[in-house]
Formats: sequence, C-alpha cells, structure tokens
Amino acid sequence: MSANQVDLGTFFNPGSVAVVGVSRKIGAFGGALFLREYRKSGFRGALYPIHPEADEIDGLRAYPNLSSLPEVPELVILAVKAKLVPSVLEECARVGAHHIHIFASGFSEIGTRKGAELERRITAIARQNGLLVIGPNCMGPYCPSSGLTAWGAVPGKPGPVGVISQSGGLTQRLTEYLYSLGIGTEKAVSMGNAAVLDGPDYLEFMAEDDRIRTIAMYLESAGDGRRLLHLAREVGKKKPIVIWKGGESDVGARTVASHTGSMAGERRLWDALFRQTGAVQARSMNDWADALLALGLLPAPRGKGVFLIGGGGGSSVANGDTCVHHGLEVPRLSEPTMERLRETVPTAGSIAGNPLDEWRIFDDPEYLLEILGLAYADPEVSMVIVDRMVPRAAFHMSGDASLTQEVVDFVTRNRKPTVFTIDCDGGDADLTARGTALRAEICRAGIPAYPSLRRAAWALSQLQSYHAHRAALG
Amino acid sequence: MSANQVDLGTFFNPGSVAVVGVSRKIGAFGGALFLREYRKSGFRGALYPIHPEADEIDGLRAYPNLSSLPEVPELVILAVKAKLVPSVLEECARVGAHHIHIFASGFSEIGTRKGAELERRITAIARQNGLLVIGPNCMGPYCPSSGLTAWGAVPGKPGPVGVISQSGGLTQRLTEYLYSLGIGTEKAVSMGNAAVLDGPDYLEFMAEDDRIRTIAMYLESAGDGRRLLHLAREVGKKKPIVIWKGGESDVGARTVASHTGSMAGERRLWDALFRQTGAVQARSMNDWADALLALGLLPAPRGKGVFLIGGGGGSSVANGDTCVHHGLEVPRLSEPTMERLRETVPTAGSIAGNPLDEWRIFDDPEYLLEILGLAYADPEVSMVIVDRMVPRAAFHMSGDASLTQEVVDFVTRNRKPTVFTIDCDGGDADLTARGTALRAEICRAGIPAYPSLRRAAWALSQLQSYHAHRAALG
Repeated sequence: MSANQVDLGTFFNPGSVAVVGVSRKIGAFGGALFLREYRKSGFRGALYPIHPEADEIDGLRAYPNLSSLPEVPELVILAVKAKLVPSVLEECARVGAHHIHIFASGFSEIGTRKGAELERRITAIARQNGLLVIGPNCMGPYCPSSGLTAWGAVPGKPGPVGVISQSGGLTQRLTEYLYSLGIGTEKAVSMGNAAVLDGPDYLEFMAEDDRIRTIAMYLESAGDGRRLLHLAREVGKKKPIVIWKGGESDVGARTVASHTGSMAGERRLWDALFRQTGAVQARSMNDWADALLALGLLPAPRGKGVFLIGGGGGSSVANGDTCVHHGLEVPRLSEPTMERLRETVPTAGSIAGNPLDEWRIFDDPEYLLEILGLAYADPEVSMVIVDRMVPRAAFHMSGDASLTQEVVDFVTRNRKPTVFTIDCDGGDADLTARGTALRAEICRAGIPAYPSLRRAAWALSQLQSYHAHRAALG
Repeated sequence: MSANQVDLGTFFNPGSVAVVGVSRKIGAFGGALFLREYRKSGFRGALYPIHPEADEIDGLRAYPNLSSLPEVPELVILAVKAKLVPSVLEECARVGAHHIHIFASGFSEIGTRKGAELERRITAIARQNGLLVIGPNCMGPYCPSSGLTAWGAVPGKPGPVGVISQSGGLTQRLTEYLYSLGIGTEKAVSMGNAAVLDGPDYLEFMAEDDRIRTIAMYLESAGDGRRLLHLAREVGKKKPIVIWKGGESDVGARTVASHTGSMAGERRLWDALFRQTGAVQARSMNDWADALLALGLLPAPRGKGVFLIGGGGGSSVANGDTCVHHGLEVPRLSEPTMERLRETVPTAGSIAGNPLDEWRIFDDPEYLLEILGLAYADPEVSMVIVDRMVPRAAFHMSGDASLTQEVVDFVTRNRKPTVFTIDCDGGDADLTARGTALRAEICRAGIPAYPSLRRAAWALSQLQSYHAHRAALG
C-alpha cells in the first residue's frame, strides 16, 4: 500500500468531520446538508459544525473555528463563500488538518479572471502545505460502508463499483441507477474542478482497493494526461474502467469550461486512451450503467459469437442485424445443436437456427434450460442473449416472466456470458413498470438484463473488446 | 383516385369476411382468431366461417364452402394448410371473390423446394385471375375505424399513421407502442412473404389516403425495387416515410430467408433509397416510434440549431456532446437572449448559455415559459429540447412534473419544433413508471417526449434531414 493509499483512504473513512460554513437553519443546501446526510446514513465519527457565533446547530455542539475543536478533524468540508476559502485552507494547515473537501463553488468555472485567480491560490496553498484537497465545486467523497453519503435519499449500498467523477449530479444518478439494479458502490468521489487531486490520483487509489472491481469515470479534463494514459493501461489489466468523457464535442467543451473550468481539449490524448488501454468509452448514463453491468457480472467471452434466443420473426431478423451492427457475430450453430433444434422447433411460424425464433422459450422454463444447455455446449457460441418479453395481453401471453431458480443457477454457475433483454421501453406505464421490475430482479440475481437488444449488444461488444485487449496485453 | 385505390381500399373496409379454415373449437390460434377479434373490435359487416361439416361456429352460421355463401365475400381469409391454398384460391376466383388474405404459412419461408413451388403457384393463380392477395404467412389488414383489428387486446385507435410491414409481430408492437403514447393508426398491413401485392403497392395506396400523414414500413425485401425507389421519392414530398430495413446484415439476411422467404440483398438499392428519397432509416422499434413521433407532430425546423434547456452541469455537457454526435448544432444564443439569461441565472452552480443549466426550469413553470419565449424569439434557435427529470427524493425534488396547460399551449401553438426528454430509463420500477406516464401524458398533449436525450437528438436530426431533403426537392 503506497503513501497515496493511506492518505486518500482517510477521505472515505474519517474519524471526524468538521464543516465550515453551516447556517443555523438546518435544511438549507450548503454545509448543513453534509451534517444532516452523514448522520442520517449512519456515520459514526464526530461531527463538528463550525459557526462564528452559534453554540449548537441541529443538536450538535458548534465551534467558532477549527482551532477550538477538541481534536484535529480528519476531514474538513469547506462550504464557505469562495473568497473565504484561501484563509480557511490556511487555517486547516495551521491546525494540522490535511484532508479537505471544498464544496464551495465560484472558481475557474465562473469564467472570470478573479475565479481563476482564486483557484490558483487554493492550488498553491495546498501544495505549499501538503494538503490533500477534493474539489472545489463538488460533492466530495462518498462511501456507504462508512456512512459517508451526501445523497441519503437513495440508500447507500456497498458493492463492487468505484466512481471518479467531475459531476456530482451524474455520480448521484449513477449510484441511484446501480442501486436500483442491486449493485452497490464501494467508493465514489465527485471531484469538481480537480484543482489539486485529479482523476489519475483517484484512479491510482481505487486500483489498489480490493473491494472495487470495476471503475466508472466521468471526466471533463484528463488531469495529468500522460499519467492517466499510463494508469488506465496498467489498471485495465486488473479491472475494467468505463470512462465517460464529457466535452467530446466543441459544444461540450464550451460547456465544460462553465461547469468545472476545465480544458476539455487534448483530443489526441483521448483517442489514444480509448485505443490503447482497453478502457470502455461511455457516452451516456445508460452506456455507463450498461457497461458496468456486463463488465462487473460476466466472465470473459472466448470470441465474438452470440447465440440469440427469442421469439418473433421480425424481431429475430432485427436482433441479428443489431448484433452485427455492434461488431458481434451471430454464427451458424454446430450440427448437434441444429439437430436438436430441428427436432423441437415447429417448421411453420418459427425458425430453428441462430437467431432462434421459438415462442416456447417465453413460458416453458425447462425448454429454455435445454436451449441454454445446447448453447453452453456449442463451440460456435461464445455469448448468449435471451430476448424476453413482458407478458402482455396483446400477444395472448399471461403468467409470470420471472426466471426460475434453475435457470438462474444454470446461467450464473456456467461460464458463458449470458444476458437477458426485457422489452420495457415503450409508452405503457404498466408494461414499463413490470418490465423494469423484472429487469431489476434478473440483475439482482447476478445476470445483466437490458431494456433493449441494442443496449445488450453494445454492452456485450464492450465486454468482448475489453477482454480481447486485456488478453493481447498478456 | 386510381383503380389501385378502390381495389386495395376494400381490404380495409370489407362489407363481409369469409374465413376458410376455422376449427369448431374457438380459441385456437388460426382462422378462429380473426372471427373472434373482428367481432370484439366492432366489425359491422357479415362474418362467414367456412367449415366442411359444422352448421354453426361460435354463434355464427357456418357454410361448407365459398359457393354456398349468400353473397360474394368482400374479403376471404385463408387459414387452411399451405397445400390446400391453391385450390381455395381457385375457388375464390370461381365465386368472384377478389380480395384475399392468406394467413397460412408454409411457403418459401420454410426453405424447401416444395414451399417455394407452392408460393409460385399462388402467385400464378392470382395473376391469371386478377386476384389481389395479401400474404401468405401474415396477419393481413388492420383498420381500427372499420373494426378490423386482429390484435384486439390493445384497443385499436384510428390516427395519422399508416404501417406497411413484413412482420406481424413488429406491426402489433408498433401499434401498441403508438397507442400508449396517444397516437392512433389509420391502416396497417402485415404482408408476410408479399408474393402478389408488395411494399410498393401498399405504399402507393397509402400515399393517397388523406387520413394517413406518416408511413412506417418494415421491409425485408424491396418488392419491385425500382418502383419502391421512385415511389419513396414521390411520396416523400408529401408525407414522411420511416423505413426499418430488416436483414441489413448478412445474418439478418439469412434470417429473412427463413422468416418471409425474401431475398434481403440489393444493398445498393437500399443505400440509394436512404440517400436519395429523404426516407428515414429506423433500426429498432424505438427508432421507428421515435421518428414517427417527431415527424408526425412537429413542424419543419429552419436549421440544425438546438437550444438545450435543462439542469445539471454534467448533464449539460453530455447533452451538448450528444446533439453534436447526432449532427445537430448547439449554437451560441443571440445577445438579447443571453442578456436576459444572465439576469435570471445565478453565477454559481448554474450555467447561463446553451446548454442552459438552471434547475428552476424543473419546478417553476412560469420561468420555463419565459425561457421558451426567449428560445422562440431567438433567430439562432431552430429547435428546442427541454430535459425534464421525474421528481425524485435523491435530488430533493418533490411535486408534480406535469406540464401546465400554459406551457402545452405555448409549445403547440408556436412553430419551433420542441421536444421534452423524461429520464425514465433507469432500473427503479416506480421512477420508470412515473416517467413513462409523464412521457405519455406529454405525447398525448401533442408534444413528442423521449426517455433519453440520445433518442430526442436522433429524432430531431431525422426531422431536420427529412425536411431539408424535401426542401431541396422543391
């Protein structure tokens, strides 16, 4: 464990937290938010509101400044006005507080000379005094196992994902999204303008955290670009990294300047990164979550060949097209598989082959199990997509689309990447809710499930590319 | 109105329907389905089950053959075994029935020489006797205003869409999808193998139907390719056509052969078609519905410039990137607009510009109305996307996200294409259901709403391309 490990680790499990800049009226957005949310999510360390006059805030004893605290706080959150940040940072240095999260905004992101100058000052003060600083302009660290979650409305759930992000909103939405699919987040950091600690710093830290198995990044700037490239390559050999690069376009880059004051540029760097490191490029919240599901839950595929199991002639044609469109293959099945399919699939109205078009897979779990058995035994098949519709009156379908325990066990115990698609994208609120619930149920059982074939195919193609890249690196 | 108009029109509003091949036991899939569903959906003409022995089927008087009917049936549905189809077709010719829907399958799609031979025979019989034949291997005509709907579980609703499709399943799912968004279907035809009447025949027919304003096609083969190309160009000048070409890939083409027995090939034809005619290319059910929403509900945009109205810094960056990725522009706003934005948008935590990042638009309808007013007055803005989240505890949002009547009126009465996005793609069944319900509510008010920025951007880029193409043709 490097010094960096020890140092950054404190951010996610501090023994005490001081918040500078808390209004007496709890409930306002600002410093008070952290006090309230950390208590709500079960943080067990000491919490110190800092207020020039108040004796008590929301039942917590308040202190006039950092030096009057009974101990050196292990984490200090700065929620004061931007112009006050440099002097409070200097106070941190004086009392020996080293871990600082600057929540305050009003720095380079506002586009004024004064804002940029203020940001340079905090960088300089941090460097001179050896302070570790998250931010400014961000939601800071998040770690459910320590009760350190600032967005308590969605229950924090520890799990295998690490998140490094220049957007608090997108971080919050991702943890919410993954939570709904039963996937927890071990640690996340919303790092805002990243004036001191940058993306590569957090990446190096999370690479060594054994509880983190996949890393999601939302980056508007690379930070130290060479270091990011080097780290992404090295870390990628051990765990998948899914990077959403905000500000890819000129318009995005213009917005990045107003959001985190970053320079989005360096297009060549990003091209090299996605080409050379095996990192997956996400371009939306769905991409982000879809790739994390596949890379987090599935084993490495042997090749690009997908067996498409579903019902409906038009759907089968379209599903084949979609897989090919995403760089996958839909191979002809081997003769033993075809022999058995020809025995069980009726000639009219169904298609024995790949894609398989046979409605029986929707409501006959034993038949589905048999088909999965054929798929796993067939050397032409590297991955499996089962297209599953929500039962609907329109197709004279009834009953329960939940997977049987036998199917779940068979899929999770065997070693071919297998995903389900659940049609829950339409405009009918009831169908959508039932489809989403079914999708979440399957994900919670440890099997990725997607709301469309397109998203399933994209996720599998990323899974395949990542592992092919990793294998090529040896 | 051409002869073709009169002739094909009967399929969608026949005075009487005879079904050949009905089992005594109603409830089975087969000919009985049509009798049951047409009665359920309010078909007012005579229904004649044809059965060699039965006197009555499900309360309807049955007849032993077509010649024993009290009248010449205006539509005959053939649900007999494939090998019996030629002789029943000849019987149709003898009694003078000209409109035939062959539901039966077992022709070229089964891939045997016998199947192909049978299909050639029905084509020959139809040609010799001047029979108009839909099919074989399909669900036939659909017309809610005539009570002619074979998938009665989803209520038929007349509306501005026409559908021409080689997949019954996809046709059914599209009508279901559009219905849930408040959009009805005037006429649809599931044409299966299209052995006699083909895509261009139906396209020519629907082009002249004034109740149809947009046409959706799912085609596995072009039919008469030159004629399709010519018609798509001509019809496209009057109404938008959204074509989903099944079998684009080699895999899809292989499946097409087993689905409708078609040759999917002719890649050059399809390339030319999408390049030269302004037809929109869909590649999934979502594409299909998304394009129909935009092209059906929105006026022509003047240019490619989109104003992105939303909240959240990371989202704003990503939304800008996504629009550019789809060929749209996100222009800088004109000075009067910026002046007003700078007056109303706080400096910290928000971004005054395009994209606009200002959470107030979520819960202050009067402010949203003011921003829309600025957008419609700004010459840089051709289209508007309002990114709207479902209220959620995680973002300390509460209340109702429904649009006020003032916002609906303002958007629908003004002439800049405007769409909403509703975040309802996640894994939380409740959020998804509320998001989908909100989305449907906005669509029903006449404003397209999409579950993701990506889909909104794609739909607007198709809207822009279609109208630019149409304008260039003069």
